[in-house]
Formats: sequence, C-alpha cells, structure tokens
Amino acid sequence: MRYADSNPVNSGLLTDLYQLTMLDAYLAQDMAETAVFEFYSRRLPSNRSFLMAAGLEQLLDYLETTSFSTDEIEWLESTGRFTPKLLDYLADFRFSGEIRAMREGTIFFANEPIAQVIAPLPEAQLIETRLINLLHFQTVIASKAARCVLVAPGKMLVDFGLRRAHGAEAGLLAARASYIAGFTGTSTVLADAAFGIPTYGTMAHSFIQAHASEIEAFEHFARMYPEGSVLLIDTYDTQTAAQSVTELVARLRPQGIRVSGVRLDSGDLPALSIKVRKILDENGCDDISIFCSGNLDEYALARDFTNVPVDGFGIGTHLDVSADAPYFECAYKIQEYAGIARRKYSIGKKTWPGRKQVYRSYDKQGRMLGDSLVECSEQHDGKGLLESVMKAGRRLCSSPDLATVRDHTAQELMSLPENLRDPFNKADYPVAVSRQLRDLAASIDKANN
Amino acid sequence: MRYADSNPVNSGLLTDLYQLTMLDAYLAQDMAETAVFEFYSRRLPSNRSFLMAAGLEQLLDYLETTSFSTDEIEWLESTGRFTPKLLDYLADFRFSGEIRAMREGTIFFANEPIAQVIAPLPEAQLIETRLINLLHFQTVIASKAARCVLVAPGKMLVDFGLRRAHGAEAGLLAARASYIAGFTGTSTVLADAAFGIPTYGTMAHSFIQAHASEIEAFEHFARMYPEGSVLLIDTYDTQTAAQSVTELVARLRPQGIRVSGVRLDSGDLPALSIKVRKILDENGCDDISIFCSGNLDEYALARDFTNVPVDGFGIGTHLDVSADAPYFECAYKIQEYAGIARRKYSIGKKTWPGRKQVYRSYDKQGRMLGDSLVECSEQHDGKGLLESVMKAGRRLCSSPDLATVRDHTAQELMSLPENLRDPFNKADYPVAVSRQLRDLAASIDKANN
Repeated sequence: MRYADSNPVNSGLLTDLYQLTMLDAYLAQDMAETAVFEFYSRRLPSNRSFLMAAGLEQLLDYLETTSFSTDEIEWLESTGRFTPKLLDYLADFRFSGEIRAMREGTIFFANEPIAQVIAPLPEAQLIETRLINLLHFQTVIASKAARCVLVAPGKMLVDFGLRRAHGAEAGLLAARASYIAGFTGTSTVLADAAFGIPTYGTMAHSFIQAHASEIEAFEHFARMYPEGSVLLIDTYDTQTAAQSVTELVARLRPQGIRVSGVRLDSGDLPALSIKVRKILDENGCDDISIFCSGNLDEYALARDFTNVPVDGFGIGTHLDVSADAPYFECAYKIQEYAGIARRKYSIGKKTWPGRKQVYRSYDKQGRMLGDSLVECSEQHDGKGLLESVMKAGRRLCSSPDLATVRDHTAQELMSLPENLRDPFNKADYPVAVSRQLRDLAASIDKANN
Repeated sequence: MRYADSNPVNSGLLTDLYQLTMLDAYLAQDMAETAVFEFYSRRLPSNRSFLMAAGLEQLLDYLETTSFSTDEIEWLESTGRFTPKLLDYLADFRFSGEIRAMREGTIFFANEPIAQVIAPLPEAQLIETRLINLLHFQTVIASKAARCVLVAPGKMLVDFGLRRAHGAEAGLLAARASYIAGFTGTSTVLADAAFGIPTYGTMAHSFIQAHASEIEAFEHFARMYPEGSVLLIDTYDTQTAAQSVTELVARLRPQGIRVSGVRLDSGDLPALSIKVRKILDENGCDDISIFCSGNLDEYALARDFTNVPVDGFGIGTHLDVSADAPYFECAYKIQEYAGIARRKYSIGKKTWPGRKQVYRSYDKQGRMLGDSLVECSEQHDGKGLLESVMKAGRRLCSSPDLATVRDHTAQELMSLPENLRDPFNKADYPVAVSRQLRDLAASIDKANN
C-alpha cells in the first residue's frame, strides 16, 4: 500500500506488536475482568518544574472511534501470527471503558496520574500505545509553550513550527497544544480548519527574492492585502528595508492601504529591533508593529528581549520539537486487576498501586500550596483533579471549546507558586502520598514476601 | 470537524498560511515562471558529524497525490481571506515539477542540497512546508539510528519508540527511517502493513501483573507462542525470574515449546545481563538470548554494553524523538527564478545561489575523501549525488524496495572516513565550493551593490 493512501492517525494497526500478542493470550485464558491503568510521569525532565496536561480530547476522539477495518483484519490474518479468536475480537472492537482524567491545561507533577482507564483488561491493554502517544506529545508541547507564555506576558506568540515538527500530526497538534497553553495562534492553516485556532502569516524570503527588487515585493504584497500586511525586512539589509517600508507607507497610506507590521528573522534581533523601531517612529510609522522570528524559545525571550520594542514572536522549531525536553518519562501502568491492587517492583520504576485521585490545596490568594496523592476511596477536602469524562466508551459531555480550556490554563498559570513561575529555576513542589496509599503498597509488599 | 475524522497526513491545508497568501500575490502578478528551490542543512547539530538523508519516498508520494478536496476549497472560501483566482488554482492543483535528490540513506553535510525542486514558482512555493516537514523528520531519525548501528555492529536493534514519538506519523516514519539506517525492525505493527518492516515484540509488565504469579504469566505466554517467545523478567526480581525461566524451559522443552529470549527493562542492565546470562547458561539455557530495553541510546550502548552478553536492544524514546538532536538547521531556499540566480543575504543565513550538484571522491579503499559543491552546469568527474527522480510531477521509476535502500545505507556507513565513524567525535569533513559557484555569488553581490 502506498504511504499517501494510508492514514496512520486512524489506523488500528498503529500499535505495538506486543499489544496484539498479549491480547491473544488474554483471550485464550478469558482474562477479561476489569483492569485499572493510570498514565503518569515517573519524573519530570531536569529542566521542568511542572508539566501541563494536554491531549485528552484527541484521546477521547480516538477511544470513541478506534476500530479495525476489514482491510486491517485481512492484513492481520495474512501475517499468520494471530488466532481467529483475536481476529474476531478485533473486528468487533469498540472501546467500552471509563476514563477519569485531569482537564486539559491542568498543571501536574511526577507520580500524579493525569488519566485513569477502567476497562476490561484486553481493551485497557490494547489502547496503551496510542494513549501514551497522544497524551505525551501534547503535554510536552503545552508544557514548553507555557514556559514561553510565562516569560513573555502580553506579547503576541505565534507557533511557526509545522515544517520542523515531527510529521503531520505533530505539526497540527503542536498548534493546538501551544494555543491551549496561551499562544495567540499558529501559522498552520489546518489548525484553523480543524480546531478554529487563529492563524497568522507574513511572507517568505523567496517572495522577496522572486521579485526584481525588495521594494517591489513590499508594494505588491501591501496592495494585495490593503487592510494590513506584515513585511519581511531582513532578506538583504534590515535597516535599509525598514527605511523603504516608511517610504512605501507614506505613498500607500493616502490610498487607504495599511502596512501593519514588519518581521525580522535573522541577525542580532534585539539590537536590530531597537534600530528598526527608531526608524519607524521617526518616519511616522509608530503604528507599525515589530515581529521577530528565527531560533527563538523561552530562553532567548527571557535573555534577549526584556525591554526590547518587539510586539510579537514567531516560535518555531524549538517549540514544536520541545528542543530542550523533547519527551518526559511517563508510563501507563496497571494498578488494579479483578479488584486486586497491583504493584510493579522494577528497579527505579516502582509504582504506587490502586486507583488514585489527586487533591490540590491553595492559599488565600489562590496560589497552589501542595498536592495529595490518595486512594480514590479516601475522603478528602476539595475537588479531585481527576474527573470522570467517559463512560461505556462515550464522552459524558461534549468537549469544552478551546476558549474555555484557555481560561482554565490562564488560571492554572496564575495559581503557580512563586518559585515555579520562573521557568529557569528548578523548584520542587510538595506532592504528599497518603497514609492509606502507603499502607496499601506495604500490604502488597508483605503479601509478596 | 472532529479531529479523528480529519487526516492531517493528506490534507492540502497542512501548510503555513503565508504559502497561501504569497500564492495569491504571485497569481495576481502572473509570477509563474520556473523557480529552483533547494533543501539543505545550514549547519549540522553540535553532536553530529554527518546526516543521513531520508524521507524522499514520502515526499514523492506527497507530490504525486497532493491536492485540495472540495471540502477544503469550501473551507478556504469561507474564511473570506482568499481570492476566487487562488481558490480556482488550488481546486485544480497538481504538482507538475521536477525533483532531483540524493538517494535515501546517503550521507550528507552542511550546505549540500539533498533535494532540488524545479517548478513554476507558485507550485515550488506551495509545497515548501510539507517538503521540509517530511525530509527533515526522517533525516533526523535515520541520522540518529545510524549512530546506534555504528556503535552496536551485529546486534539486533529494534525501534520501540512509537508511544513516545511525536504523534502518529512520527511513530510510523521513525520505524521506517530507523529501518533504512540499519535497524533490524520495529514494534510498530503499521510499519509492517505499510512498508513491510519486520516487527518484534515481547510482553508488558501489565501482562505479568495481571496474572496471579510471574511464573504463571510466563507459562501462559510460552504455551501461546510455542515456536518462540521472549519473556519479560524484571517486573519483580530479575534474577529470581531468570531462574524461573530455566525451570519453565526444563518443563516445556520436552513438549516442543521454545522460549527464545528474555527481556530486561530496568535496573543496572549490563550487570544484570551478565548475571542472567550465567543463570541461563548454568541451567541449560544457553540458546536463550538476552534483550535489553529502557532508556537506551547510542551513548548507553557504547558506554555500558561493550563486551556484555546482550544480543539485542529495544531503542525507544531516545530514537523516536532523537533526544540529543531533535532537529537540525535546515532551509528550503529559492536559488533561481526566471533563469536568474538569486541570493539571500540575511545575517548568518547567506545562501549559495544557482542550481547545484554535489560530487564525492573516494580513496582506493572506497572511503570518502571529500565533496565538491558545484553549479549543475559544471563538468566534473564522477557521478553527482543529486539524481533526477521526478519529472512533470511523476516518479521517473518505481520506488526502490527497502532492502535496496538498506544495502545503499550499509555501503554509505562502510565508506565513512575513520574520524566520522565514532559518533562521539565531532569531526569535520571537507566540502569544497567550486570556483564557478563562488564567481556566481560574487557576480550577484556586485550587481546588487
């Protein structure tokens, strides 16, 4: 089959081989009692003091729709690897379980489950690979984007990373995850079509270079978009181009044509921005904004752009691959099967057993004070962060719109304690493990010895 | 539209907004003469001495099939952003250009184009985003995988990274790119269905934990796959489990049931492997292989596993996100338009203008000596690395099968000079820029001053 004819996003075959072989084994022994799995981070990356949960909506989409097509079943059969029992099971497969999860945009820490799956063992097992794939990626990107938002409050931040993202889905979902975290928008057109995310764009150097002169390219583009265009001014000499823009504006303004901004993409961006701002202001163009791009990330923003007259930033590669932390340690682990709590003892990878819930406490100003990791059955003040979002394989309510998610995110960032607000300070946040959970773990340890 | 119903892999809308606005401007001025764009790396990551080209086949698939559906055209129209002229153009869009490219698996260096696009300007512009997205990602992964292959010759290397890859397409194409580079296979089932890549798998900890005991889980799985199974032995205590495996084998072997391997996924893997090897060998299980996984990459392989009795490795997260170099600086730049060579002067991002070719010379042992970057029109000994692979929007010949690509890759790795064979040594490789190319650049500089 030709790759372009396949669709990895929706294929039931987008899974690890062992999910299918384990499933075959489970079916052979009728091991289909209820299992509880949890997805959580084992430890945070060394340069992250918190993570921001994202990807739940795509997970729920996947769980509501995932199935195996006739072609896929036939292909599986053709490998000769699987029993007719498994093939029949997969042909009828629909996820029928329950999901409890943290809302998208919620801040979380190591060992706190952000999603809990309660389903017959074969179902809970089969969804593992794609569940991790979806929750991990958007969480990586939302967490990276939140850092940019924290260091550049009030600035326009636009995701420019599609071209360097790891494939098609990464580009699209990076636009979504960064928008959730507080970005202003993206350059990715499909993100508008699929999610209604605002899109922004300027022009490429090739546009300038294809014209006989830079000024001709500027005028052509400005006339094409009379309500407002952003002109790229670094193809040849940035300050000369800024001067040209002011002359162009003087000519075009009387005709009702508006140039809304200029973009700088190379060189010493902060120094050039100051010079360009001066040229624009001294030539009657103080209404033209300055937009910078080119190898930017939260480190560059904090280091180089404090008190620099830049109105907005295009953040590309470093955002879409989360260059300084392209993954986080995470796991999807069985915590209970057939009513019995389970514990894994692998060195350095011990789990807290049982069905869990996370409670968070706040000070009077609404700042986070600390979390408690408890067994679900425990009584506890406040509202648990894990909410039931799916039962019997169906969403319990329709998805929140992205504006609602963004409001929640903004509130989450507001509620960060002071020592977590600086993305360059590695700080600890208290997550207490309840007595009951410790006792449960101890009782399993005892039973196994 | 619901995300699960969309298919980012094949959507014409998977592009940057500015491609569409620039296109509209090009069409307004009838700027549709032939343009030449090249895709190349500006500079290699600090921890890479070479890159390995990959992704060409998916690019050609994209170019042969990309189009805009009626739904997409209607959606674009609904935004009110684009002219009817653009919408008509996109509705009929088919790529009609020529592609010259390096074969997949070819080693390349900074400033060497790995793909050259010759097409009417609007077409060459429109494909930019996805072209970079496809070539960049697989090149990142093939380059990472090649490093693993270099440090672990003769070992079984399996891609385990789907779950931590950045989305669906990244997971699938990481399996392909690592296989091209010399990996033995992958755990990703869809990679077998789509590309015929061998798949491997063992079992998860949850499989062990869902059973009443580890030994029961082992026996159940071994009986299920009597021709050979790999048992995961680190859920509780690794050495105890290894001992259990030998007892199980003693019972099952007479029944014709074969255990082919054990997998270790945590703890001090090299030390445990030595202990497990001893337990297996002393108990008549010297035919059972040892397979390790868990946070592995080429650094761990080289540092910890030299002379350790491990037969194969599952390499996951670090491979699929290329953790130590998740991107490389790359660009898709216009080099010629309407027969005139173009040059960009942006600070730190100057281009070599014109249509280029790359020649490579070798010593008598077939080791690479150095490359020459020249104008296409120049006479030069040897065969240029950029070959014509598409004309008028159609492949010139059918895709090479992956076995052929892997043969080429193996030869490329064999031909690396000694100082490039050590992935942990940052070495320079000579790439000479021809006199004619320098003269062309100088003549453009002169004309612009």
